[in-house]
Amino acid sequence: MLKLSKLLGSSLRGFSSQAGMPIAKKYFEADGTLRKKVFAPYTIFKGKAALSVEPRLPTFSKLNSGGLKVERKGVIMLTFLPAVGERKYDWEKKQMFALSATEVGTVLNLGPSDSCEFFHDPSMLQSNAGEVRKTLSVKALGDGSGYFMSLSVVNNTHKTNDRLTVPVTGAEFSVMRTAFNFALPHIMGWDQYTNLQQTNTSELPSGNVAQFAKSEWER
Amino acid sequence: MLKLSKLLGSSLRGFSSQAGMPIAKKYFEADGTLRKKVFAPYTIFKGKAALSVEPRLPTFSKLNSGGLKVERKGVIMLTFLPAVGERKYDWEKKQMFALSATEVGTVLNLGPSDSCEFFHDPSMLQSNAGEVRKTLSVKALGDGSGYFMSLSVVNNTHKTNDRLTVPVTGAEFSVMRTAFNFALPHIMGWDQYTNLQQTNTSELPSGNVAQFAKSEWER
Amino acid sequence: MLKLSKLLGSSLRGFSSQAGMPIAKKYFEADGTLRKKVFAPYTIFKGKAALSVEPRLPTFSKLNSGGLKVERKGVIMLTFLPAVGERKYDWEKKQMFALSATEVGTVLNLGPSDSCEFFHDPSMLQSNAGEVRKTLSVKALGDGSGYFMSLSVVNNTHKTNDRLTVPVTGAEFSVMRTAFNFALPHIMGWDQYTNLQQTNTSELPSGNVAQFAKSEWER
Amino acid sequence: MLKLSKLLGSSLRGFSSQAGMPIAKKYFEADGTLRKKVFAPYTIFKGKAALSVEPRLPTFSKLNSGGLKVERKGVIMLTFLPAVGERKYDWEKKQMFALSATEVGTVLNLGPSDSCEFFHDPSMLQSNAGEVRKTLSVKALGDGSGYFMSLSVVNNTHKTNDRLTVPVTGAEFSVMRTAFNFALPHIMGWDQYTNLQQTNTSELPSGNVAQFAKSEWER
Repeated sequence: MLKLSKLLGSSLRGFSSQAGMPIAKKYFEADGTLRKKVFAPYTIFKGKAALSVEPRLPTFSKLNSGGLKVERKGVIMLTFLPAVGERKYDWEKKQMFALSATEVGTVLNLGPSDSCEFFHDPSMLQSNAGEVRKTLSVKALGDGSGYFMSLSVVNNTHKTNDRLTVPVTGAEFSVMRTAFNFALPHIMGWDQYTNLQQTNTSELPSGNVAQFAKSEWER
Repeated sequence: MLKLSKLLGSSLRGFSSQAGMPIAKKYFEADGTLRKKVFAPYTIFKGKAALSVEPRLPTFSKLNSGGLKVERKGVIMLTFLPAVGERKYDWEKKQMFALSATEVGTVLNLGPSDSCEFFHDPSMLQSNAGEVRKTLSVKALGDGSGYFMSLSVVNNTHKTNDRLTVPVTGAEFSVMRTAFNFALPHIMGWDQYTNLQQTNTSELPSGNVAQFAKSEWER
Repeated sequence: MLKLSKLLGSSLRGFSSQAGMPIAKKYFEADGTLRKKVFAPYTIFKGKAALSVEPRLPTFSKLNSGGLKVERKGVIMLTFLPAVGERKYDWEKKQMFALSATEVGTVLNLGPSDSCEFFHDPSMLQSNAGEVRKTLSVKALGDGSGYFMSLSVVNNTHKTNDRLTVPVTGAEFSVMRTAFNFALPHIMGWDQYTNLQQTNTSELPSGNVAQFAKSEWER
Repeated sequence: MLKLSKLLGSSLRGFSSQAGMPIAKKYFEADGTLRKKVFAPYTIFKGKAALSVEPRLPTFSKLNSGGLKVERKGVIMLTFLPAVGERKYDWEKKQMFALSATEVGTVLNLGPSDSCEFFHDPSMLQSNAGEVRKTLSVKALGDGSGYFMSLSVVNNTHKTNDRLTVPVTGAEFSVMRTAFNFALPHIMGWDQYTNLQQTNTSELPSGNVAQFAKSEWER
C-alpha cells in the first residue's frame, strides 16, 4: 500500500507537468469554441513502465440538412510511459496506441486465457507507409490472474525499436473492462442518440407527435 | 489493417453521399420542432455486403394530465448494403430491418453457439399483407468465433428475392452487445425516468416532499 | 409475428385508456411543482395475463445543511393484468408489486435454473397487518428457456384470492435484466452522484479546489 | 419481510439523525460554491452491524490551459455501524473504508467462491504511519450464497481494536455490483468525457470541424 501510494504521488506530479505543457493540436468544437480538455486517465504504475488509458471522443460536423454526423471516430487512447528510475516515468518517451471501437470490442471479449494483437501503421495509405509499425499485444498470464500489455514501436526512419510492457492484474483489467464498457457508446457517438435532450427542456404541447416514419420499409 | 482502413475510407464516402440525400420522412419533436438527426452508425464492411446498426429513438406524446407517453417505440435499425465492387457498397439497394426491444433482448441473450431468426411483414394487418416478407437470421459460426447475420427480403409484387449476408466477428459482436445494452433503455424510453432532470435545475426548498403515494397498494 | 403485432396493438389501446384515467395520487417535486409522469412501461402480453414493468423513482427532500436526501426509495413496479378475452386485458383488475433495490438484485442474480419468491404485506406494522398478503414468485422453466412470473394476492377482508401468471421468455427476461440494470442506480438515487451537474454549467476558475476532506479517517 | 421492514424503518431514523449532524468538512466546487451533498446510500442492516455504501466523487481543478483535471480521485465509501441493541446502530462508532477504483475492480471481479483483502494506513507517509491499520476483507460464504464483509481497525495510539462484520447475501452483493459498475466511471471522472455537454446546447454551424489532431502519432 505504501508503495502504491508513492507511485500515485509520482503519477500526479507527472500529470501536472504534462498538463502544463503546450498542447500542439487544440480541439475545437464544430461551432469554433475550444473543446474543454479533460484529464481523468486511469493509470497503472509498474516497475518498468506505466500505462494510462482514457477515451478520446469523436468529433462531429453539422450537415446541411441540420443533422449531426460523426466526423472522426473516437478511440480509447493507451499511453505507455517507460520507467526511468524508481517510481519515475518519462513522459517525453511516451508511446501511444489508439484503440478503435472494434478493437475495444476485442478487449472486452477477451476470456481469462485469451490473447490478442493489433497492428497500426501511422502512415498507412501515405507515401511513407510502413516506416513506423506499432504492435499492441494483450496476453493472458499463465494462471489467468491478469494480462501482459505490450506496445512495440518500430521506426525504420529513426532506426528505433521501443517495447514497453505493463503487467495488468485482474482487478486493473476489471476496471478497464467497466470503463471501456462505459466509454464505448461515447466514442461511437451513440450518446448523441438520447431522448433526454429532446424532451426535457421544452414544455411539450398536448396531442400527438406531428409526423413520423411508420416503419423500416418506408424510410 | 491497410485493407480495413481503405474500407473505412470508402465507408465515410458512402455515408457522406448518403447524408446529402434528401430525407423523405422528417422527424418532428412533439413541440413541432425538427428532431436533430444523428448519424453515428456502427458499420462493418465485408466482402459481399456491409452492415450498419444504429438506434432509432421512440417518439413521445404529451397527455392531457401533463405526463409524457411513448407514442411509437424505438428500435435498433439494421441496414444491409450489397457490395458492388471492391470496397464499394450500393446505398440504393439497401435493405433494412428494425429490431424491437424484445428482439434486441434475444440478440443480447445469444450464447456463443446459439442462433435466432426473426420474421417481419411490412404490410402486416393491411390488405397487402404477405406481399413482402423479411427474415433476419443470426447464426453462430461453427467454432464459436462469431456469427453470420443474413437478411432475406422476398417481394412477391416485384418478384424479387434479396439475400444479404455479413460475417460478424466476436469482437464486432461484442461492440454490438455493448452498444445494444447501452441503447436498449433509450429505445424503450426508460431514460425519461431519471432523477437528474428533476433535481438539478431548481434549488430545492428545505423540508419534506409535499405528497407522494405510500405504497404499491395505494396507487 | 402477426399475432404479436395484434397484441401490441391492443396493448397500445390499453395504455391509452389507462393514461386518460384520473390519477389518484399525484407526484410533486420537492419544490412543489408536479413531477412529470412518464409512461414508458415494458409490457409483455400472454394468453392469460400481461405483465408491465417500469421504474418508480425515489423522492428527495432537502436538508437544512443544503444537501439532498432520499426521502422514499424508488422501486421497479410490476403490474399484472388479467386477460378478459382474446388480446384484451382488464386494467381495473390489475395487481401490483413493487420490487425494492435488493429484490431487483435478487432478480438480476437469478441463474437460468434459479427461482425466488418475495412476500409483501401492504399493512405491515399497522393494525390491519396480515389482511392482505402478496406473493411474487419467479420460477425457472424446466428447460432453462425462461421463467414463470406469478403474483398471488390474498385479501382476507374481501375474501378474494387472485393469482396471475405470465410466462417470460429468455429474450423478454434479457430485456428486463438490461432495463433493471439500467434502472437500479436510478431507483437508488445514485444518479444524483454525478460530476456532470457540478462542472458543466459554470466556468471553473483556474487553480485548485478550495477545500476538501483528505481521507476516510478525517471525515 | 416484516423483520426487514422494521430494520429499514430504524435505518431511516438513523439517517435522519445523521443528516442533521453538523458536517465537519464541507465540499466546495472549484468555483467556490458549496457542492450539493447527496445522501442516497445503499445500506444493509444485519444483527451485529450495518453496512452502508455510497460513491464519493472526485474533485477537479481547472488548468491554465482551460482543461479540467481530476484533483482528488473518487472512491466508494463503505461505512460500518455496530449494532447497539435490536435494530439500533451507533453512528458515533462508525468505521469507514474508502475503496479506490482498482479496489472496486477487485470487488467487481470476485467470483462466487473468491475472497480478497485490502489494507489501508490512514497516516501513510506521515510521521505517525502505522499507528492505525485498517483491513477490509471480503470472504465468500462456503456455499457460494454470498460474502462476509469485515472491517478491522487497529489503533495503536488509542489501544483499540474494532472489528465489524456484515454478512452480505448474493442479492445484496448483486445490488452492489450493479451500483459499483454504474459508479466506477463517475469516481474515475470519466463521465466528464461525454459528447452530450459539447453538442447539445449550441446550434452547430454547417461545415466540418475546424481542426483536430489526425492520429495517435501526431498528438
